[in-house]
Amino acid sequence: MFLSNLMPVKKAQDMISSSLKNVGTEEISLEDAHRRVLSEEIVSLLNSPPFERSAMDGYAIRAEDTFGFSENNPAKLKIVDTIGAGQVSDTIIKMGEAIKIATGAPIPKGSNAVVMEEYTVADKDSLGVEMSITPGENVSPMGEDIETGDIVLKKGKILKPQDLAIIASAGYSKIEVFKKPKIGVITTGNELVMPRPDISGAEIINSNHYTFKAFVESALAVPTLIHCLDSAKKVEEEFERLLETHDGLISTGGTAISKGDVVVDVTEKIGEVLVHGVALRPGKPFGFGIAHEKPVFMLSGYPVAAMVQADVFVRNNLYKMQGIDMSPQCVSKIAYRKIPSSLGRTDYIRAKTDGSNVRPLKIKGSGIIRSMVESDSYIVIEENLEGIGEGEECNVLTYDSLTI
Amino acid sequence: MFLSNLMPVKKAQDMISSSLKNVGTEEISLEDAHRRVLSEEIVSLLNSPPFERSAMDGYAIRAEDTFGFSENNPAKLKIVDTIGAGQVSDTIIKMGEAIKIATGAPIPKGSNAVVMEEYTVADKDSLGVEMSITPGENVSPMGEDIETGDIVLKKGKILKPQDLAIIASAGYSKIEVFKKPKIGVITTGNELVMPRPDISGAEIINSNHYTFKAFVESALAVPTLIHCLDSAKKVEEEFERLLETHDGLISTGGTAISKGDVVVDVTEKIGEVLVHGVALRPGKPFGFGIAHEKPVFMLSGYPVAAMVQADVFVRNNLYKMQGIDMSPQCVSKIAYRKIPSSLGRTDYIRAKTDGSNVRPLKIKGSGIIRSMVESDSYIVIEENLEGIGEGEECNVLTYDSLTI
Repeated sequence: MFLSNLMPVKKAQDMISSSLKNVGTEEISLEDAHRRVLSEEIVSLLNSPPFERSAMDGYAIRAEDTFGFSENNPAKLKIVDTIGAGQVSDTIIKMGEAIKIATGAPIPKGSNAVVMEEYTVADKDSLGVEMSITPGENVSPMGEDIETGDIVLKKGKILKPQDLAIIASAGYSKIEVFKKPKIGVITTGNELVMPRPDISGAEIINSNHYTFKAFVESALAVPTLIHCLDSAKKVEEEFERLLETHDGLISTGGTAISKGDVVVDVTEKIGEVLVHGVALRPGKPFGFGIAHEKPVFMLSGYPVAAMVQADVFVRNNLYKMQGIDMSPQCVSKIAYRKIPSSLGRTDYIRAKTDGSNVRPLKIKGSGIIRSMVESDSYIVIEENLEGIGEGEECNVLTYDSLTI
Repeated sequence: MFLSNLMPVKKAQDMISSSLKNVGTEEISLEDAHRRVLSEEIVSLLNSPPFERSAMDGYAIRAEDTFGFSENNPAKLKIVDTIGAGQVSDTIIKMGEAIKIATGAPIPKGSNAVVMEEYTVADKDSLGVEMSITPGENVSPMGEDIETGDIVLKKGKILKPQDLAIIASAGYSKIEVFKKPKIGVITTGNELVMPRPDISGAEIINSNHYTFKAFVESALAVPTLIHCLDSAKKVEEEFERLLETHDGLISTGGTAISKGDVVVDVTEKIGEVLVHGVALRPGKPFGFGIAHEKPVFMLSGYPVAAMVQADVFVRNNLYKMQGIDMSPQCVSKIAYRKIPSSLGRTDYIRAKTDGSNVRPLKIKGSGIIRSMVESDSYIVIEENLEGIGEGEECNVLTYDSLTI
């Protein structure tokens, strides 16, 4: 198939993305929520802090009792109680009285300020306050952090440690999150063997098995891996079996456009193929279909082509299936050297950034895994450009920007 | 304790870091290696590809047989065999012969080039080649990607999907990685309760329980969580119990400098306290000790102070314990407004970046969790600076730069 018969990258991306939705929600313990995705707004059930509290270790007082006093002329107060962390005092402070108080403890009734321990002199139950204290000093108001009814986090938020803290403070120990998509990964190819130091004949090590388990994990989804021979019957059996219990499939191999397309034929038989062949280099032999209302991403068997296809067509959709809207943005950098390209084709060129510059790696062949290991970004050359000149600006997509 | 008695942040960081080493290595299946850290160099056991292979679907030929031929005057060859994926042919190509070959299959003996199917016309066993082919065309040399003996990855590498592909291709199904540190997290405080909508009296929700489970996970380590009352006996029991089976401890609460320092006293009793009180805001009441040759990080009970202490003193050490050298770098941004600071103290101010600018959040109090949720970075004001003027450059540490 020639370029004119291939689907433009953008069209394929839009077609795939618009055919997918999230895979539903589940309730989980807040303890297990790190890096999960909120499927609901969190509205606080509580004030936090739930009471006026002391911001310092010191003495709860009536500020008025200290007005005009100083180090040379300390206010004389009487200590009538002590409030430790986790304690409450029922004592109401009256004129001339103080209560010793720990950081975080509730301010007792009658008090409107806390004086830090450093500015006092205590002797048994008598206290000297060596400065004039402003009302409200060292008192954290109730609800200073969050108030009952506040929206503390929005739907779609990917939860960081501090987000869990605010959800807990809002009164929740369980939350609704989007389910992680369960993805069946099927590597196909009669020539593939697992890694060992003594391969022979036409055997090739199945590196895609490892790449795509990790790829699915890196997209915060849950992979199940199997290998399958290049037999339409076997592939169909495995596709049907995995689709019963998974939310989507990724296959590698069997997508070539000019030979027996085992995987694409199976998808066509059990569902519908929407994309087969894209104007992408590397990565032309990419297919996408829907079977049993679930997505089937059909990648090339060639390791690098498959990785590029996964970054271009799969990753953001695995995010979308779990409620994450992830649209990585290109940055602009200066090309160290000329990069040729063809009109009508989008190129993803493995490259290494260096400050505001970028250097395309000197590699050819979509089997060169080392190029993915040594690069940190793609130079993306859109289909309406005939390459980039030396010293010209180009669009760069860093690998770091693709993951969460 | 006043500023002059507090340890400078840099000194505390150096003291902690120099007292720690990695927690050893283990062998794991390559399948489980995503985001693990290599503890050995990977030297390839194989050539990849392991043989000269065809880069295209087409015909393996002798290039010499096509010299001078063209579309109008095609070379006439005889098809003597077919090699599919995973197959090997024993046939040796002689003058005037061709073998049909699949992408990735081994080039048969006698052949030195592959002509793409598109440039041929086949009729039963006769083949017309419509162009002159250069020797080596569409042939991927043996070892093009990696050669036996090549160092494909170095010690300390945090493994991405493509790294697993190259390790597999180098012939390994198992690898040596650094162990993940097992960290006991002890939240202390009589006032702490688990989240619920009906708290009363002096009860405070234990948000640190959630924050620090997730924090340890975010540092790729493995947390065990417990809560403990403010009792020296209880804390000592739990510290001793957890230290038997863990590589280090993180505690929250009980580190205040002016009151009963339960946690610090326990660490002093069962080990040695190296740091107590640092010139950091927020986060002054931080402690660090070594007990049974394992690190004990003692954080404040106040959520935000504890998070800042964890970012400043704990995170990079959890990385170090698993062989990762992680030194996040500040970036320079323009301050939207004046930020006061004190000489002799390092400030970590929660802030929000906006392109090349940064805006400090308007918050006070080390209990305001919302400030950590709404910010994306710290403005770091070193101890030799008396604040930053509006429009001046300042050092910014983004939260994204802290994690892997």
